[in-house]
Amino acid sequence: MIKDIIDKKRRGLFLTRDELESIFMGYLNGNVKDYQMSSLLMAICINGLCKEEIFNLTDIFIKSGEVLDFSDIDGVKVDKHSTGGIGDKTTLVIVPIVASLGIPVIKMSGRGLGYTGGTIDKLESIKGFRIDLTNEEINDSIKKVGAVITGQTANLVPLDKVIYALRDVTATTSSIPLIAISIMSKKIAAGADKILLDVKYGKGALVSTYEEALELGSLMQEIGAKYNKEVRYIISSMNSPLGKCIGNALEVREALEVLKGEKGGDFYNLCVDIASNMVSMAKNIEIDYAKKMVEEVLNNNKAYYKFVDIVKNQGGDVENIPISDNIYRVYSKNSGTIKEIDALEIGKLSLMLGAGRKSKEDTIDYSVGIVLNVKVGDKVNTNDLLMSLYINNINKFEVSDNIFKIE
Amino acid sequence: MIKDIIDKKRRGLFLTRDELESIFMGYLNGNVKDYQMSSLLMAICINGLCKEEIFNLTDIFIKSGEVLDFSDIDGVKVDKHSTGGIGDKTTLVIVPIVASLGIPVIKMSGRGLGYTGGTIDKLESIKGFRIDLTNEEINDSIKKVGAVITGQTANLVPLDKVIYALRDVTATTSSIPLIAISIMSKKIAAGADKILLDVKYGKGALVSTYEEALELGSLMQEIGAKYNKEVRYIISSMNSPLGKCIGNALEVREALEVLKGEKGGDFYNLCVDIASNMVSMAKNIEIDYAKKMVEEVLNNNKAYYKFVDIVKNQGGDVENIPISDNIYRVYSKNSGTIKEIDALEIGKLSLMLGAGRKSKEDTIDYSVGIVLNVKVGDKVNTNDLLMSLYINNINKFEVSDNIFKIE
Repeated sequence: MIKDIIDKKRRGLFLTRDELESIFMGYLNGNVKDYQMSSLLMAICINGLCKEEIFNLTDIFIKSGEVLDFSDIDGVKVDKHSTGGIGDKTTLVIVPIVASLGIPVIKMSGRGLGYTGGTIDKLESIKGFRIDLTNEEINDSIKKVGAVITGQTANLVPLDKVIYALRDVTATTSSIPLIAISIMSKKIAAGADKILLDVKYGKGALVSTYEEALELGSLMQEIGAKYNKEVRYIISSMNSPLGKCIGNALEVREALEVLKGEKGGDFYNLCVDIASNMVSMAKNIEIDYAKKMVEEVLNNNKAYYKFVDIVKNQGGDVENIPISDNIYRVYSKNSGTIKEIDALEIGKLSLMLGAGRKSKEDTIDYSVGIVLNVKVGDKVNTNDLLMSLYINNINKFEVSDNIFKIE
Repeated sequence: MIKDIIDKKRRGLFLTRDELESIFMGYLNGNVKDYQMSSLLMAICINGLCKEEIFNLTDIFIKSGEVLDFSDIDGVKVDKHSTGGIGDKTTLVIVPIVASLGIPVIKMSGRGLGYTGGTIDKLESIKGFRIDLTNEEINDSIKKVGAVITGQTANLVPLDKVIYALRDVTATTSSIPLIAISIMSKKIAAGADKILLDVKYGKGALVSTYEEALELGSLMQEIGAKYNKEVRYIISSMNSPLGKCIGNALEVREALEVLKGEKGGDFYNLCVDIASNMVSMAKNIEIDYAKKMVEEVLNNNKAYYKFVDIVKNQGGDVENIPISDNIYRVYSKNSGTIKEIDALEIGKLSLMLGAGRKSKEDTIDYSVGIVLNVKVGDKVNTNDLLMSLYINNINKFEVSDNIFKIE
């Protein structure tokens, strides 16, 4: 009985694979109610899951839908996943870098539900870009341009879709096992051979501390090993936004700058780090050597032209990315050193401007967003420009005093 | 935001009165969803509530509906509550005992949702008995016969009704704070001056151990003190059924036997214990002296005639309580001493025969049930009668071998 299964987890006891399957698949099939699943999810959040339960539940998630197979495409397929954050547009830079080095990349990304858009939303700010490729189109694209960035097929881990939506409204997102199961089931079902994970911690991230990020990364690595997938993870901080642009079209523009050769800064460094790891895994070479190859394709614009090709192949044009020309500038009220730029507050502002969605039904304004003029560590004087807000069609917004911590 | 309140309790933090009120009253008003409340209830089950949260939540429960006031009725009003169990028909014996000693008793009881009927269901096995008295009829009845046993008015702690129903299907019943709040909010709203609680522990009870029963009793006493209600509690075991009859009409028959002077056994002793405590509280006298008074009204049949009057006043006739005459007898398969009669298994059998209801919509067959022919400690031989099942209109039932533990 469903109630008895929930009760076992309430008492912190082990759930068998059959028990997990009957309640989770029962939920997907509509036989288990929302209120029963949320009660179980809270018990899992507080009492945890042991390794065996985590491996079993990941497998149940994977098998709830289609498992993609790209084994007829030559070469080692590498995939990457970031646990997300404010201003994270790394996928847009990494995919063309890796593809320009001859490594096939099939990157399936999601829409954002939160403060900013997801990778797919960002790409949709490019006029004409298609994100709904069929499996056949994916295969063709790989042959033609070596890479594709597309939305997830509807039948990829359907169980994750329903559980994720419920966790979002019942305060049951903060569970390392549930986060690991959600990410890894999708990565494994998406059919890559090797996976690079960028695990974030801090104010704008799913987990708060470095230790939790380490636990999450190592758990995901263990899950991958069960499916013979080589998994590497890097850990990065998400207390302040990544890079200087937040908002869909603005983030594509920032990605283009890096692809065209702009160097330095947290965003550039993270892109090089992730791409080097992916190249190192795919080609089975030392990270230092991989890094040199990555820097080369950035310097000689090969990565940039690869991005242009990828976008063109999917119907878009990198010259046609509309950005609002209605700019509101925010100046510093005092002088000192920027100690912190609060990622969460920036996220809330981005949402207020229309760059994210609060619920699935909301539409995103791709042309709006935020461009930071300062970074953490910068010295500012009173009336120095802190950031520019690109606004459009909104009547009111409020800039919180808590965004910039100046001392 | 509701999600933030749930998240605080997930992390084991304190919820303010405002937070508790916004989420619980929001649930009653339909603004908070089932799946959010069940997530919070599970967090409360695991992480608990501190005293201040318990007192605040009890108050929110009480104020969610009508608070009855019987102060225009002379004398100290005493009430009793049992945390329930298999074969517990003590109310039927206690109310007439206490009333026959001149103490007004307004006993509001519930229907059963579980293995057996509640007090109200048991009384409905008496032909013509009305359980839906108005507040005016209650006042009149007290003046006329000194006691009334009636159903709860619809508007008494409406919050408890919705929360209880949700807890029942989400494995969130086993929480001492939630049990205490549910019971005490109803007792306080029902307007008695002094309250006697019979806290059960064991297989057929809400809590398993004596220590938990002690914790529950003492917590309910503290809640009562906040409203200047004197609360006493006794603790009793519910591993084996109470008395020998299980089933609605059969339990009324057993109560009548005790009222007519039959002595001894666990059921008789518990009735005397509870009634003596109520009399001692109401009259402010020593328990030993109260016990003598209780025994006297049982010996001289005053309590029995009081019961006849109470039943008559509410439209019933104690001579008209139909019991099925289709009896199936269960005999012992071996010989030895009865070590245990499993209350939970007896409850399940009772439900199978039709004496309880699985869901609110089920109807009860008042005429069916179980009469135990043996008690724990009895010695039996092979083929000795263990129990008689009173059946009616059912095609199949199965008697579990786990009911009687004979060694």
